[in-house]
Amino acid sequence: MSFQKLDELGHKLEALEHALAILGADEATHMAVGGGEKRAEAMAALAGMHHRQATAPEIADWIAAAEAEPLEDTKRAAVAEFRRQYTNLTCLPAEFVERMTTARMRSEQLWRDLRAKNDWAGFQPALEGVVALVREEAAMRADALGLAPYDSLMEQYDPGNRAADITPVFTELKAFLKVFVPEALAVQEERLAKRPLKPLAGTYPVDRQRELGLAMMAAVGFDLTHGSLSVSHHPFCGGVPSDVRITTRYRTTEFLSALMGVLHETGHALYEQNLPKAWSHWPLGKARGMAMHESQSLFVEKQIGRNPAFWRWALPAVEKHLGEAWPIDDILPHVHRVERGLIRVDADEVTYPLHVILRYELEQELVSGALDVADLPEAWDAKMRGYLGLSTADNPADGPMQDVHWPGAAFGYFPSYTLGAMMAAQQWAALTRDHPNADADLARGDFSAVNDWRRERIWSQGSRWSTPELLQRATGEKLNAAHFTSHLKRRYGN
Amino acid sequence: MSFQKLDELGHKLEALEHALAILGADEATHMAVGGGEKRAEAMAALAGMHHRQATAPEIADWIAAAEAEPLEDTKRAAVAEFRRQYTNLTCLPAEFVERMTTARMRSEQLWRDLRAKNDWAGFQPALEGVVALVREEAAMRADALGLAPYDSLMEQYDPGNRAADITPVFTELKAFLKVFVPEALAVQEERLAKRPLKPLAGTYPVDRQRELGLAMMAAVGFDLTHGSLSVSHHPFCGGVPSDVRITTRYRTTEFLSALMGVLHETGHALYEQNLPKAWSHWPLGKARGMAMHESQSLFVEKQIGRNPAFWRWALPAVEKHLGEAWPIDDILPHVHRVERGLIRVDADEVTYPLHVILRYELEQELVSGALDVADLPEAWDAKMRGYLGLSTADNPADGPMQDVHWPGAAFGYFPSYTLGAMMAAQQWAALTRDHPNADADLARGDFSAVNDWRRERIWSQGSRWSTPELLQRATGEKLNAAHFTSHLKRRYGN
Repeated sequence: MSFQKLDELGHKLEALEHALAILGADEATHMAVGGGEKRAEAMAALAGMHHRQATAPEIADWIAAAEAEPLEDTKRAAVAEFRRQYTNLTCLPAEFVERMTTARMRSEQLWRDLRAKNDWAGFQPALEGVVALVREEAAMRADALGLAPYDSLMEQYDPGNRAADITPVFTELKAFLKVFVPEALAVQEERLAKRPLKPLAGTYPVDRQRELGLAMMAAVGFDLTHGSLSVSHHPFCGGVPSDVRITTRYRTTEFLSALMGVLHETGHALYEQNLPKAWSHWPLGKARGMAMHESQSLFVEKQIGRNPAFWRWALPAVEKHLGEAWPIDDILPHVHRVERGLIRVDADEVTYPLHVILRYELEQELVSGALDVADLPEAWDAKMRGYLGLSTADNPADGPMQDVHWPGAAFGYFPSYTLGAMMAAQQWAALTRDHPNADADLARGDFSAVNDWRRERIWSQGSRWSTPELLQRATGEKLNAAHFTSHLKRRYGN
Repeated sequence: MSFQKLDELGHKLEALEHALAILGADEATHMAVGGGEKRAEAMAALAGMHHRQATAPEIADWIAAAEAEPLEDTKRAAVAEFRRQYTNLTCLPAEFVERMTTARMRSEQLWRDLRAKNDWAGFQPALEGVVALVREEAAMRADALGLAPYDSLMEQYDPGNRAADITPVFTELKAFLKVFVPEALAVQEERLAKRPLKPLAGTYPVDRQRELGLAMMAAVGFDLTHGSLSVSHHPFCGGVPSDVRITTRYRTTEFLSALMGVLHETGHALYEQNLPKAWSHWPLGKARGMAMHESQSLFVEKQIGRNPAFWRWALPAVEKHLGEAWPIDDILPHVHRVERGLIRVDADEVTYPLHVILRYELEQELVSGALDVADLPEAWDAKMRGYLGLSTADNPADGPMQDVHWPGAAFGYFPSYTLGAMMAAQQWAALTRDHPNADADLARGDFSAVNDWRRERIWSQGSRWSTPELLQRATGEKLNAAHFTSHLKRRYGN
């Protein structure tokens, strides 16, 4: 039976994915500094085995045969999602994948070096090489999938996402933010004039911050029998659903950045821990995609973790673990700090989408050929001035050389961040329609109704639906910028 | 070129071994408690991939072709060792391996349960099943290797070890120990009468013990850029040569058990860290076998770590990290404590070989059929009374149910422990012939000459020679019990 063959293959692939996930998390947390070279060799070899096994030609026959078998709905959906993944994995010829891998790795290495030196001229040829290959890739993917080239790139990260749906929503959001950012900054200034900012500075031992983080994780729903919290240079959520590894980094002079990082990663972790276990070895049982994943992390970090109601409950925990009693009116200005800046990853939730929309617009032009890499610094600077009133003219390191995504050939990924933020707001709005007392729940540290809602609507669904379908089924409507803009107005407006 | 094919296969196998080693170490140190089921599934699948790739039929042709190629000496040795490993891996039919795996896993599970209940009658049928299969296995291995059945089992753990060589040496050692154990106990009693034992009791925070352990590891030669120290329930040395994971467990009431454990595992680690790196993906580049590995751990733990000269250097480090100044005459009675006991893993270096010789004698009879499992408790008790004057008549849990080895079908493994102890003493004797100042080196914490000697003679040799050949090349003579007995007499005699 062909379904059975796919099932057995799934177990083998899951074992390799398990190894890669744990080796990856281990590398960032516990590996000896000198172990990197052999680790890279081992992971490359395992990834190669995974790719060969996942793309073997006979799988096409198994899928076709399984599609012809009389299967109940979930199995049918499992086979359909298997086909989708198989098509995405096999639509590029092996020789192209090798060329791309080499180009990408070289360009990433060069980027690391030249970004530190702010050397755009040295980096431009490498990025040109990558963009040329990305255009080839998009054409081939578009052909195989019957999609527009840029849509076919997004399809890898968020199945079903289409520029035709996203662009109008982003356009609306951009128009709103161009007006709202100055407004929010003015409101903030006014408030701080009335009640000056109490500096977030002190001495917070790492072990106490860790205990606070663990207490928050557990309260918010993280299953500590199926996951753990470690330290790494860049925080992440990795591992496997049965053993989710989240990390943070600590500064002993303030506690908020580590704590908000823990909440963010806990949001990712909740999704992984609550996926349908029986399907963990099938694409169907995996999380839906990057945007939906980000919506889960941002749901916990922004919708819950920066909600004033949450802080009514959280501050006593902070006091218990860190021995410091913060009045809520002194902590919220830090939690809701808005600031214009050049760096996406440092941006607050008000300005962040403008960083993403800028990249979304530029990368579409790069993929289509409407924009040349040589003209990128100027185009970036123009948009940055237009959207945030900041210039990167003399500073390409903080302009088009800012992120690893483009040097790494990950075009079509950026929109996920802001789609995630919007989807999180839309989920919160739908949730509070069903549960008008959600704020009161947070204020007493009761996350059960919130998590039940998300488990049923999102986590348990795995990859059964495309990203837009899943959002619509969960919230009752298509992606709608109004929920996110209302959220921002409530939190940051007058 | 067939050598090249074997080389490429070696890289793939090394990647899977890397994954298995790190997943195994991670499981014991950092895995979430609920992650075990999926981890077991993943590791079983990866081990299956490794076995299938390592035993593929075409490899036999590659080996034969490589043997016909004009190769320089080291490559020729690499191919020969590849053949040896391939023969050992492929000499059992797959259906037998499956039957054995099932029987072994059931018997191990049963053993865990029934040992706790001291229930020999319940366990006996399971062990009978395993022993029946081990007899089959030994016959098949003997046939494939042209060895005696028991030798063919030892061959898996220590290539070249033969009962005909080991039995006379063990017989001599047994005769010595039957006389020497009472003598050493009398000497100890006499000494303690003169200078009463200062109890090894206090309060030693884990983090300070850890710092002491790390300082000792580094001093003795452990490369902390290629390895680390963690905590686990059962101490082990795992990971990979580029990232050796050693563990210990701490008791806050005394520091000696954790410290001696760290030194033991550091001995294993030094071997792994100093294997020939260029051959890490070939059998040739692996450590020679269990006895030689144990000789390296016991070299550091017993020859170095329980040497009074070592403690002249170590005690100031203990004082620095733990804030306690021990006179050497008070610590040595703990370091050299001798005690008759039923439990092998708790035994000191004087009584330990009797535990091993007892098992060595019994397991040969079990494999040959001269002894039935039903008669094992009585046979064990008789030997235990004869060798150590203790009885296990009413206590099979601490008799033939004591160790996991037999329930796990690992027959032929036990001799490695005492062979390792003897080989360590023989290495120390050879080393001190070349470096008469070795004691003085230890007393000032200088391990360079000691390590240089071992690196050249043992570590760098990988699996180029059989175990007896390697010992003879390193020390200039065959296994000779006199070095170990002299060592015991010097340390524990009058």
